[in-house]
Amino acid sequence: MALTYAIIGTGAIGGYYGARLQQGGCDVHFLLHSDYEVGRDRGITIESIDGDFALTEINAYNNPKDIPPVDIAVVALKTTNNALLTKLLPPLKPNGAILSLQNGLGVEADIVQRLKETTDSVSTVLGGLCFICSNKVGDGHIRHMAYGDVLLGAHNDQNQPSPPTPLMESIADDFTRARLPIDLTTDLPMARWKKLVWNVPYNGLSVVLDATTEEMMNDDGVRSLITTLMQEVITVANTWGQKVSPNSPRSLPVETIAQMLSHTEQMVPYRTSMKIDYDEKRPLEIEAILGNPINTAQNLKIPVPTMTTLHQQLMFLNSRNSSSTAHHQL
Amino acid sequence: MALTYAIIGTGAIGGYYGARLQQGGCDVHFLLHSDYEVGRDRGITIESIDGDFALTEINAYNNPKDIPPVDIAVVALKTTNNALLTKLLPPLKPNGAILSLQNGLGVEADIVQRLKETTDSVSTVLGGLCFICSNKVGDGHIRHMAYGDVLLGAHNDQNQPSPPTPLMESIADDFTRARLPIDLTTDLPMARWKKLVWNVPYNGLSVVLDATTEEMMNDDGVRSLITTLMQEVITVANTWGQKVSPNSPRSLPVETIAQMLSHTEQMVPYRTSMKIDYDEKRPLEIEAILGNPINTAQNLKIPVPTMTTLHQQLMFLNSRNSSSTAHHQL
Repeated sequence: MALTYAIIGTGAIGGYYGARLQQGGCDVHFLLHSDYEVGRDRGITIESIDGDFALTEINAYNNPKDIPPVDIAVVALKTTNNALLTKLLPPLKPNGAILSLQNGLGVEADIVQRLKETTDSVSTVLGGLCFICSNKVGDGHIRHMAYGDVLLGAHNDQNQPSPPTPLMESIADDFTRARLPIDLTTDLPMARWKKLVWNVPYNGLSVVLDATTEEMMNDDGVRSLITTLMQEVITVANTWGQKVSPNSPRSLPVETIAQMLSHTEQMVPYRTSMKIDYDEKRPLEIEAILGNPINTAQNLKIPVPTMTTLHQQLMFLNSRNSSSTAHHQL
Repeated sequence: MALTYAIIGTGAIGGYYGARLQQGGCDVHFLLHSDYEVGRDRGITIESIDGDFALTEINAYNNPKDIPPVDIAVVALKTTNNALLTKLLPPLKPNGAILSLQNGLGVEADIVQRLKETTDSVSTVLGGLCFICSNKVGDGHIRHMAYGDVLLGAHNDQNQPSPPTPLMESIADDFTRARLPIDLTTDLPMARWKKLVWNVPYNGLSVVLDATTEEMMNDDGVRSLITTLMQEVITVANTWGQKVSPNSPRSLPVETIAQMLSHTEQMVPYRTSMKIDYDEKRPLEIEAILGNPINTAQNLKIPVPTMTTLHQQLMFLNSRNSSSTAHHQL
């Protein structure tokens, strides 16, 4: 029995996963903003390495109040738009959950915090890490260029590991039926740290150096800089993993670095999501990807000079980039 | 009695100081390259905040062998062209000297090393730190936009302080007569370290962030990054000053940072020399300004993570910038 989904933010991520779920037989409700009319009248078109397809009819909304209660509210906004979140969430069915497909550290805790400020009861919050390269290339038109795997885990306020729930299994069934590769993790926080090992260097440096992954990997100095950044992230992650779970420390193995470098070398030349945001003059997700891990490092009194440098550079570039254009964001 | 000068590299620096010296009554010989014909036929034009002037006739050379023996051979090449240096030097009169007006650390030692490889006797080598903003804007045409002070000192292989010599006093007399502000220093190496406290952050970040000094100073994060870089330079400088002179340690006071920040804030919005080089697709003086101090730090086992990050970023940007265009350099 398939679950029902609302997609909050029908962009590169939400649009792709939502369309696949509908194609796989789920009842999906899409919240759109700038391309609401296009979505309502013509649906969504997906160009995908796993096969192109078009949904000529979708449940399109421009007002979240019109969305019926769903099992899963998928949060696919940029983290920079989270201030709007509580106004955009639809009602959940009993035992429903919020699923954040956002990038970075602390995104589930941020959602919980915002919910606490506006509602009495806080729903279950899940996190899905999306290993995907996709881009919205026009109104109602998404291009899925590489990968697509999702790693699904549950959030809890203590940041402890937790076993998969029946609801998570049901989501995984829906994704699998939709031909979306998905795995479950018992340790969402460490999975988010691990993804940061990639996102911090590649997203950050791609903007500062105006470079693709391939250009960065071909330069010995930048490779070395990437390695330094990865080491800083792992040091913070492992110190954190020791502190929150002193009896059974959680950690990322140091081989993670060599694996990611090697994997990235074999990737197609890749423009990171932060670089795409920068090129399209959208605000960068600096806090989720760099600011939050740096805050954790400061709380743990771990020096992270290279991440700090990158953070300061990105804040400057983001500020100038954003001020050079007007925005119409969700 | 004025000295005679050869200007090796008639660009933004050599052209300006050489023209002023000739205007002040010195016998000056200019080695030119791409604009040799213009220099020979029409001389040099200087637009300067201290008064415009034109020298309609100069001693112009395109072959260093044609230059007569001089008292002072002024090296005003970019450090990135130093491999050509020994072929470009004219003969010196007895008791003559080489005066490097180049930027960065170790430039005098580099000249001495190159002379040792090709000649039996090594001349006196002096260093002049130029606090100036000037730019070559056309053939035989230099624009002097701000400042102009020179700090003159003597090099020795032991990197020890040394009192001004009569020759240095004579140079200072010539500069003063030419209305070029000049001071003498007994400690050229520490003066070079002090100038690096400015050059490392501002030159480096101006390229990475595509920014003027004003844009950088207006951003709190970049200000903080500049301060971190200055602290790293001062730490290396002072450890070095302790090591080479254990009995009377030489050091830069920590107030240097606040003074430079405040001074830079009051400057006109300034495009650094490295940024000008980058914009004009010339090779950047990365080794003299960042590589050499980082090598010193490594020898002293001092971590300089922020300088290292900046160095790696600049190497990448420089490599891509240079490969995107053909060069015709001296």
